[in-house]
Amino acid sequence: MRKFLLALPILFFCFIANAQNADSIFIKRIADEILLNSKAYEQLRYLTKQIGARLSGSQGMVKAEKWGLKMMQETGADKAWLQECMVPHWVRGGTDKASFIVHGNNQSNKLDVIALGNSIGTGSNGISAEIIQVNSFDELEKKKEQVKGKIVFYNYKFNPTFIRTFNAYSDAVKYRGQGPSQAAKYGAVGVIVRSMSHSTDNYPHTGTTTYDSLYKKIPAVAVGLKDADILSERINAGKVTVRMYTYGHFLPDTIGHNVIGELTGSQFPNEIITVGGHLDSWDPGEGAHDDGAGCVQAIEILRVMKALGYKPKRTIRFVFFANEENGGRGGDKYMSEGKAKSEKYIFALESDAGGFTPRGFGITSTDDAFTKIAKWKELLAPYGAGEINKGGGGSDINPLGKELGTTLAGLIPDSQRYFDVHHARNDVFENVNKRELELGAIAMAALIYLIDQYGL
Amino acid sequence: MRKFLLALPILFFCFIANAQNADSIFIKRIADEILLNSKAYEQLRYLTKQIGARLSGSQGMVKAEKWGLKMMQETGADKAWLQECMVPHWVRGGTDKASFIVHGNNQSNKLDVIALGNSIGTGSNGISAEIIQVNSFDELEKKKEQVKGKIVFYNYKFNPTFIRTFNAYSDAVKYRGQGPSQAAKYGAVGVIVRSMSHSTDNYPHTGTTTYDSLYKKIPAVAVGLKDADILSERINAGKVTVRMYTYGHFLPDTIGHNVIGELTGSQFPNEIITVGGHLDSWDPGEGAHDDGAGCVQAIEILRVMKALGYKPKRTIRFVFFANEENGGRGGDKYMSEGKAKSEKYIFALESDAGGFTPRGFGITSTDDAFTKIAKWKELLAPYGAGEINKGGGGSDINPLGKELGTTLAGLIPDSQRYFDVHHARNDVFENVNKRELELGAIAMAALIYLIDQYGL
Repeated sequence: MRKFLLALPILFFCFIANAQNADSIFIKRIADEILLNSKAYEQLRYLTKQIGARLSGSQGMVKAEKWGLKMMQETGADKAWLQECMVPHWVRGGTDKASFIVHGNNQSNKLDVIALGNSIGTGSNGISAEIIQVNSFDELEKKKEQVKGKIVFYNYKFNPTFIRTFNAYSDAVKYRGQGPSQAAKYGAVGVIVRSMSHSTDNYPHTGTTTYDSLYKKIPAVAVGLKDADILSERINAGKVTVRMYTYGHFLPDTIGHNVIGELTGSQFPNEIITVGGHLDSWDPGEGAHDDGAGCVQAIEILRVMKALGYKPKRTIRFVFFANEENGGRGGDKYMSEGKAKSEKYIFALESDAGGFTPRGFGITSTDDAFTKIAKWKELLAPYGAGEINKGGGGSDINPLGKELGTTLAGLIPDSQRYFDVHHARNDVFENVNKRELELGAIAMAALIYLIDQYGL
Repeated sequence: MRKFLLALPILFFCFIANAQNADSIFIKRIADEILLNSKAYEQLRYLTKQIGARLSGSQGMVKAEKWGLKMMQETGADKAWLQECMVPHWVRGGTDKASFIVHGNNQSNKLDVIALGNSIGTGSNGISAEIIQVNSFDELEKKKEQVKGKIVFYNYKFNPTFIRTFNAYSDAVKYRGQGPSQAAKYGAVGVIVRSMSHSTDNYPHTGTTTYDSLYKKIPAVAVGLKDADILSERINAGKVTVRMYTYGHFLPDTIGHNVIGELTGSQFPNEIITVGGHLDSWDPGEGAHDDGAGCVQAIEILRVMKALGYKPKRTIRFVFFANEENGGRGGDKYMSEGKAKSEKYIFALESDAGGFTPRGFGITSTDDAFTKIAKWKELLAPYGAGEINKGGGGSDINPLGKELGTTLAGLIPDSQRYFDVHHARNDVFENVNKRELELGAIAMAALIYLIDQYGL
């Protein structure tokens, strides 16, 4: 009996070792196919250069959805369709402008600004008011008596000491999100926020602001870091007046779509694996890293599976989500339609942290699922993606996790350059590196393959 | 007795745990200081924009050495000096040019070329000859009867399937290094090599070629990838003649210097730790990644030690090596002078793989030393530098390893973008990211600190 007991684990070990070896060989085939024949980079070139920015409701969105459906079909999805969802339709409405004048000196100094997404405009007469600088909400509280009738300038600095730059973003983004309403609460007439970036240039970075219905909506813009420093210096020296013009407003909600392609599972068609990014983007740049990269990486997984003749056991859905940037309606719709149909979403992976060289994945799951996925570390490490961390997903797939208990994963690319370009004019194709983009796709394809093979 | 035996390992474990914790805290202080106050990026700006390219023997080299010595002094080295060494003085001598004509069509088509380093020129009349394409040395052997009087075009492609791009370089660089002499052996009059790169642009990449004294020296240039593809297509379609003009030649050897700064050890001054990069660079770009980055990272370690009031136990030498690119004389000199003085070089670290986000270190050492260093993985991982691989060093420090048995380490940055810029016109400051450069310096400073604390 003892012999038998010993033999079992050995057999089991051999089985595991052989499976890992076969997986390692198949993942190498995925990697070679992508590095030799990937279409991701050229697809991204088309999406960014021929279509460009793709804010919800814009012509860019409409063109991108058509292109996306065509890509899903041409790349060989078993089925491809558009999933309709109503999206908010915020428009910039004009060219954002601002300048400042130092008291006692009539010289007008230009500020390079961009209105925050979903913010209201100043009207064509603009607004002009003295500016008051605060470095935090605490300081705002202390100065609340001085805020009335002024423009509040949140000069909170992106903290460079976080190694993962997304932590600096989490730390600072509240000034963009809640800053306008917090300032309005004390009677401010406008807001300027220091951009959420530690770039070395002066591009202003936009992104959604969220008005609190308790307070008046006031116009709000971001400034780049150099302008923020200049402004801060002038304010510290004396009274400064800012004049700003923005034209943002909402049109009625309009029709948008998630673009979905599917490879139907051969053994467990009811178990759905989702992989994607979001198709919409902010308007100043081309939405290259955010999130054209995630979309072309997702479709590259479809392409590589077809190229290698891989027939998935489970159903894999490749999704370009709508409206991540200023509403999240695409992700909500994808989840709610699945929920209504009682579909089984076992796993979802999103790439929405830039097309940079991969480091690994963040996983939101049960402990058992995490342990299972973490064991694949060694299969992913040769492609630079061996970090498996707890916690992760993506705005578009988070509703699946929350409502349906789906295991979520987010690709973790190296984050050092992300906030140089995030929501800014320089989020363009030229700032995406072909191999880095492809390595992200390899890591994603490998993980999807493993989930498809072994389930959860 | 049993209790005592149990207690010892526990005590030992606590000691180790506390030491690791103190190290982790100190390394966090290093990281914060660098991320908040680093001068590396602005020093690199000066070195690349105010001084520029720094080929051995050039005015750029002379200026850079002066700047380097000043930096060592200003940053607070206990001692700083120039270590003289004779360096080769190859000059490009003019503007490299080439064009090709397809047989039966007199239209001249421009090729963007750059002469290989240390190559001889064509003379002002240029050379004109039919071109013969080979994809490998094997193919050259097969076609050897057809080579006489022709220009050999080595069109060997940089293999994209290596994840670490340095492996693709090792695989392909023989065509640049030995290609000219191998072609001359069969009577070729000139050589064109496809650049060692998988970039998406057309910049030609230079680098040293090494003539075999058995064969005639013939002129040799590199072409960018787009031109290589066009040329290849035309050759496949019929007879093609190339005309090329290069002017490279050697002037007499001249005086160059290693720039050395030292913090003298407080406990073990005889144990020398070396950290550096090379100050010379190829001439088409600004030597930003190769290897301005390594130099400013090394001096940043000196700066952070002074800023934190850290007094090293061992002697640390910060070195900007001379002549890495086309001779290696600086590294040889540093070793031979140390050897002559019977100095004890316990450890040397080089950063010469670009100022990109760090991944870890490659180590050449005894097994014991490797085991010791590999245990620090967890201290380095929070800064993205947790990969500790066997094998590594750098051209400038390798003589120390070979001759004196010094433990060697090479910083391993992410390698995906390196061969986009390596030895090409686009190796400029703008292509270095501030945070990536700084993270490399953090990883290096952490490793130097650990070696200083614990020895080897």
